[in-house]
Amino acid sequence: MSRYTELLEKIKKKQAVVSVIGLGYIGLPTALFYARSNLILHGTDTNEVLVSDLKQGKIAMLEEGLEEIARNYLMKIDLHTNYEQLGDSDVCVLCLPSPLDEKGKPNTAYLEDSISNLAKILKKGPLIIVESTIAVGTTEMLSRMFAEKSGLKEDKEFWFAHCPERVLPGKIVQEMDENHRLAGGISTRSTEITVEFLKSVFRPDLIHPTSARISETAKLAENAFRDTNIAFANELARISDALGVDVNEVIRFANLHPRVEILNPGLGVGGYCLPKDGWILVESAREKGFDSKLIPAARAVNDSMPEHVMRRIQKTMKDRNLESTTVGLLGLSFKANVSDTRNSPTLQLMSFLKEEEISYVVYDPLVENDFGSTKLNSMNEILSGCKIIVLCVGHKIILEELQRADLSKIILVDPRYELKRLKSEVEYYIGLSS
Amino acid sequence: MSRYTELLEKIKKKQAVVSVIGLGYIGLPTALFYARSNLILHGTDTNEVLVSDLKQGKIAMLEEGLEEIARNYLMKIDLHTNYEQLGDSDVCVLCLPSPLDEKGKPNTAYLEDSISNLAKILKKGPLIIVESTIAVGTTEMLSRMFAEKSGLKEDKEFWFAHCPERVLPGKIVQEMDENHRLAGGISTRSTEITVEFLKSVFRPDLIHPTSARISETAKLAENAFRDTNIAFANELARISDALGVDVNEVIRFANLHPRVEILNPGLGVGGYCLPKDGWILVESAREKGFDSKLIPAARAVNDSMPEHVMRRIQKTMKDRNLESTTVGLLGLSFKANVSDTRNSPTLQLMSFLKEEEISYVVYDPLVENDFGSTKLNSMNEILSGCKIIVLCVGHKIILEELQRADLSKIILVDPRYELKRLKSEVEYYIGLSS
Repeated sequence: MSRYTELLEKIKKKQAVVSVIGLGYIGLPTALFYARSNLILHGTDTNEVLVSDLKQGKIAMLEEGLEEIARNYLMKIDLHTNYEQLGDSDVCVLCLPSPLDEKGKPNTAYLEDSISNLAKILKKGPLIIVESTIAVGTTEMLSRMFAEKSGLKEDKEFWFAHCPERVLPGKIVQEMDENHRLAGGISTRSTEITVEFLKSVFRPDLIHPTSARISETAKLAENAFRDTNIAFANELARISDALGVDVNEVIRFANLHPRVEILNPGLGVGGYCLPKDGWILVESAREKGFDSKLIPAARAVNDSMPEHVMRRIQKTMKDRNLESTTVGLLGLSFKANVSDTRNSPTLQLMSFLKEEEISYVVYDPLVENDFGSTKLNSMNEILSGCKIIVLCVGHKIILEELQRADLSKIILVDPRYELKRLKSEVEYYIGLSS
Repeated sequence: MSRYTELLEKIKKKQAVVSVIGLGYIGLPTALFYARSNLILHGTDTNEVLVSDLKQGKIAMLEEGLEEIARNYLMKIDLHTNYEQLGDSDVCVLCLPSPLDEKGKPNTAYLEDSISNLAKILKKGPLIIVESTIAVGTTEMLSRMFAEKSGLKEDKEFWFAHCPERVLPGKIVQEMDENHRLAGGISTRSTEITVEFLKSVFRPDLIHPTSARISETAKLAENAFRDTNIAFANELARISDALGVDVNEVIRFANLHPRVEILNPGLGVGGYCLPKDGWILVESAREKGFDSKLIPAARAVNDSMPEHVMRRIQKTMKDRNLESTTVGLLGLSFKANVSDTRNSPTLQLMSFLKEEEISYVVYDPLVENDFGSTKLNSMNEILSGCKIIVLCVGHKIILEELQRADLSKIILVDPRYELKRLKSEVEYYIGLSS
């Protein structure tokens, strides 16, 4: 029996040994889903604190439904901090970071290290699946690298695919079940065996065979599309501000049009994916001689928002002789109801305030890190100490606390228009535009 | 009784005399809708041929359902080529062009001329409604101009509003009935009386009171939003071409994502509105000191598409030694199933082909003008004379004719991917990307 047939049989019978490499925002829920489907499972992460916490059942990330699934399936995952015991893996699923380097180019060091480690220890030719969002052509490059380092023959002794995660932080558990998945193999056989593997865990009608390059491009395009549409809303906010109209009203009326759906503007775009994936797509094309125009413009617009909000705060302080007061920032994470602060626009706003020597304190019951600022422990402390409050991120708990508070003497800065219903209850309300 | 009360009563009782000024793509259907609602109606247009045709029941524009409504109501409109008999108008609805001038700035000359003419002849203070898409602040400017020229007092002796049309060419009749409408007055009273007037013709739940400035901004934002989203699809096509992947597949897979809806890329963006409205919005903000980034980038991307398609045709001709053949262009109008050729990307493609000395012929049974090119009279002539066929616009009749034809020896260029199902039936199929 060829290794392909053997592997296919093992996958179909759920006897394949599966290793999830990287147990972060995507890897951990992914591993738990596999465990729930009764796969034989290794999970490894070089972060020793994370793995030791997981062994004790502790989960740091905040995700709806994650604790419940962890309670039932975490103990079924064989947890490690290195690759030593992954030698018997049939399927390796890489959920590793793919950040930008200092020059703004995709950094594949985590993926390359993992490929090198796997090439050393795997006893039989595996199916390797990359879930990370990567530049177009990276899957093929990693596959060639694995062939060189392992001595195994691509498409004959091992198979390789890109299956990008597509879930929304905060709804990861729900969306892992419900979202469509791409199975982008480097070859027809790689695609086919990947489809079989995914079918053993997820709904078969949600799995779509394609090529690695198309899968890579589609995933980057998804995030660039979101980023560009948020940028449109943000540019409209800046334009509305210049024109002296309320962008919130402009969008409400424009969206009555049957073919228009402008997103909400805000403090900017954060999180791990959106601020970088547009650049990865642009850089992929630039290497082939094409200079993109729209996606870079979208990035520039979104990056300009924290400073815009700072300028509006600054102007209000000047207009009302409040220059010596302390500004209270509510919410440090990059979006509501998560603890993830990666690329959070609030952190950008903080550095702009610091630059302009405007003093501030922060409050976020979901985030532990204080990022070098004074972090208060209750909404009361913020409200008694600050005349100007900025709702950077509307965690459910923050919105509830604000709802109960007396805001009649407060100047509320609300760049996401989450509390526009309180407009008449606060002393002064500031959105993104006049 | 004040003029306001009198006018309001007349409007409510459908006794107001209404003049529609400008009987083009928007004005004519608008006038017919008013006639259908039994309003007393004048219609005027300076185009004498148009008015004389209309008097004979002839309608040049192709719009689904328009002929039927015209058959029943055209004779109820009192048609003119000047303002002489509009003196008794209570409500004036301006459906006039608002193009860009040579410097790319909004040209309000048509509207200003009309305001001057109305100021001279109106016997009583009117409600004036502008339907044209205009720069932010233009309604207020026109109202002040009318006050000056007529001697009437704004908001006391006349009322003024912006109610932008929002209909899709090709579906104007249907959408006039079904789409939401903004009533953007220059004052509360102007808004209120405008709402009453619109209610006498359209479904009351579809009418939304707002200010003129917000109405102006919202309308421009709608078109800039569409344009930006088409630009995203087009940029993705260019990127996919550089990366050697099929953009059509990329979009199909990306759109499986629950929050992604990438539009179709194509030959570019034409028509009267989309190519200019983004610039009007940008220019409105620029005058107030804000430089937009995203909308200008979107315009540049969309404008680049005809040349991109020409380059792909040129490359195919070179690769296949077809330099001396004639290219057949199907469809001259800016979108399918309309006769409107304003800013049509096909015309741009024609000028790029001419520049590169590539010979071409055109075919479009819906368009009379040949734009200085050789216009053939049947699909057969095109197919027998041209090895390379470009489906510029897929009119229903063109698609049907292609479906019946033998395309096995044809190189089909299909920038909108309308005939991708014929990919295996043609000799060679060319989209926007590899």
